[in-house]
Amino acid sequence: MSYFLKYKIAVIQLNLNDVAENNLKKCLSWVRDAANQGAEVISLPELYSSHYFCQSEDVDNFALAEPLYSTSFIAFSALAKELGVVIIVPFFEKRMAGIYHNSAYIINTDGSEAGLYRKMHIPDDPHFYEKFYFTPGDLGFKAFPTNKGKIGTLICWDQWYPEAARLTALQGADVLFYPTAIGWHPLEKDEYGENQHGAWMNVMKGHAVANGVYVAAANRIGLEQYIEGTAGIQFWGSSFIAGPQGEILAQASHDKEEILIAEVDLDLQENVRQNWPFFRDRRIDPLLLVDFFYSNLGHQKLKQTISLHEATSF
Amino acid sequence: MSYFLKYKIAVIQLNLNDVAENNLKKCLSWVRDAANQGAEVISLPELYSSHYFCQSEDVDNFALAEPLYSTSFIAFSALAKELGVVIIVPFFEKRMAGIYHNSAYIINTDGSEAGLYRKMHIPDDPHFYEKFYFTPGDLGFKAFPTNKGKIGTLICWDQWYPEAARLTALQGADVLFYPTAIGWHPLEKDEYGENQHGAWMNVMKGHAVANGVYVAAANRIGLEQYIEGTAGIQFWGSSFIAGPQGEILAQASHDKEEILIAEVDLDLQENVRQNWPFFRDRRIDPLLLVDFFYSNLGHQKLKQTISLHEATSF
Repeated sequence: MSYFLKYKIAVIQLNLNDVAENNLKKCLSWVRDAANQGAEVISLPELYSSHYFCQSEDVDNFALAEPLYSTSFIAFSALAKELGVVIIVPFFEKRMAGIYHNSAYIINTDGSEAGLYRKMHIPDDPHFYEKFYFTPGDLGFKAFPTNKGKIGTLICWDQWYPEAARLTALQGADVLFYPTAIGWHPLEKDEYGENQHGAWMNVMKGHAVANGVYVAAANRIGLEQYIEGTAGIQFWGSSFIAGPQGEILAQASHDKEEILIAEVDLDLQENVRQNWPFFRDRRIDPLLLVDFFYSNLGHQKLKQTISLHEATSF
Repeated sequence: MSYFLKYKIAVIQLNLNDVAENNLKKCLSWVRDAANQGAEVISLPELYSSHYFCQSEDVDNFALAEPLYSTSFIAFSALAKELGVVIIVPFFEKRMAGIYHNSAYIINTDGSEAGLYRKMHIPDDPHFYEKFYFTPGDLGFKAFPTNKGKIGTLICWDQWYPEAARLTALQGADVLFYPTAIGWHPLEKDEYGENQHGAWMNVMKGHAVANGVYVAAANRIGLEQYIEGTAGIQFWGSSFIAGPQGEILAQASHDKEEILIAEVDLDLQENVRQNWPFFRDRRIDPLLLVDFFYSNLGHQKLKQTISLHEATSF
C-alpha cells in the first residue's frame, strides 16, 4: 500500500428508485463524475440499488439481495480499476439461505476488494423495519487500508454509536464514511424535524471531534412513498463532510442530487491530534479489553490481561 | 430517595481569582441566587476556589488543595441543607501526602455527601499543566442518586471522551454535569478559536444525542494572566445546558457572570429514548466487559463472561 498526505474524498447524494438496473447505471455515472472532479475515494448512499424497501416487512423484498461478488461488485470493481479510485458500495447482501446483511464493499483502485463491512447496529422503528431483513454484522468495526488512505466504513444507524466511531478510529482510519438512508416521517417533520436533523449532525460531528477524524455522510434524498396508506419517508439529504475538529467542510442540500468533495489532509489531522491529544489521555485500563475482542487476538491474550490485572490488584 | 419527573438545574458561570476566601464567598452567594431562581441542582465551575493555577508547574500551588470534608464541604453542605438543593462543588483535593486530585463533591439536599468524583482524564497542554498536579481519578465513572434526581459528574477534559459519557449515562444519569475551565490562548484565538470552541460544543452535544441525556457545562470567564511573559488564558465562558437530542436549552455569553437554568424533564427523556432507541441496539457483546470493570463486580464475574464467550465460540 502506498499512502499520500492528502487525498480527495466524495460523497454522492442521490434519489434512488425501485429499479435496480437504473440505480446501478445512475450510480456508475455519478461515481464517474465524482472521479472526473478529482475525487479519489467515493461513497454511495446506503443500499444504493433500491428504494428504501424496509418501510414494510415483506418477504418478497429479500429478492432484492445479491450474493457477495456478483452484480454490484463486478460493475464497481471494473469502474474503480478504470478510474483508479476507491469506491464504497453499500448493498443488500444475501449471505446464504435466510441470512441477509446490510453491507458495504470497499473496492480498491485496482478493482480488488479492500474490505467488506456488515452494518453492526440494526434499527427497528416505524417504517424502518430493518431488524426484519438484516442480521447484525459479525465482522466488527474495521479500518481498511486502500491505495489512497486508510478508511473506516460504518452504515447509518451505526452513526449514533460512539463505540463504533472510536473502535474504527483507533485502528487508524483517516475518515469514517457513513452511507445512510435517513429522513423524516412527513407527518412528524414540523414538530420534530429540526431536532432530529440537528441530532444527526451533532452526533457525527461529535465523533469527528472525539477521535480527531474526518467524517463523511452520504444520504439519499426524495420522498419514497410506496406503501399504501402511509405518508412514506422524506429522505433529508444534507450529506456532509466534516474535518477532525467537527468543522463542516462541505454540506449538501435537503433535496438535490449532489456530489460533495473535500480534501483529507493527514498533516492537519496529525496537528489537531498533537494539539488536542485525546487519544494520549484515554483511560485504557478497562477499555483495552474491548479492543482485544474486536482485533481478534483471541482468548489467550485476553486471559493474560486479566491475570495481569489480578496480579496488580486492579 | 424520592424522585420527581421534572427538576430544574443550574450552571453558574463566574470569574474567579487567587483569593480562596473571596471565591468561596462569591460562590455561596451565586448558589443562593440560583436557588432563589428555582434551581434544584446547581453546579459551580471546575476548581472553584482559585484562579486556574495550572498555567505553571509550581509546587507552591499544592498549598491550594484541601483535604476531604474540610472548608468547602462544610460551607456548601450547610448551604445545601439550608436551601434544600443539590450542589456540585469542584475542588482541589489533597488526598494524602503527595496525592492530589481534581475532584467534585455532589452534596445532597440534606447536606450529606451524595458522591465524590475524581477527574479521570488529566490533560497536559501548554499552560494547562494538569498532569503535574493531579493524579488521575481512581473511582471510575458514576451516576449519583440525590434527592432531586440521578446525576453524573465529569470534569473538563473528561468532556472529550465518549466512554466517560456512556458509562455514566448507562448507570442511569439524567444529566451529565461538566464543571470546566477551558479557554483560548489569546495569541491563538484569531486563527483557531472558532474551531476550538465549536469542537467543545459539538462533542458534548454529541454525548447528549448518543446517550439521550441532558448535558450541563459550567465554565469560568475572564482573562487570567498572572505568569510573567505569557498571554494567559482567556476563559471562553459559553456555559450551556442541552437536552437529550443535543438541542440547546440555555447558553451563556463568552464574558459575563451568569446563572443558566433549565428543566430536566424525565418524561421527555423517556420519549426521546423510546423513539430513538440507541441503547436498545447497542452491541454489548464486547462492551459488556468495560461495564464490568467499572461496576466493580470483580474478576469472578468477568471470568464467567469469558467462559460464556468461549462456550458460544464468539
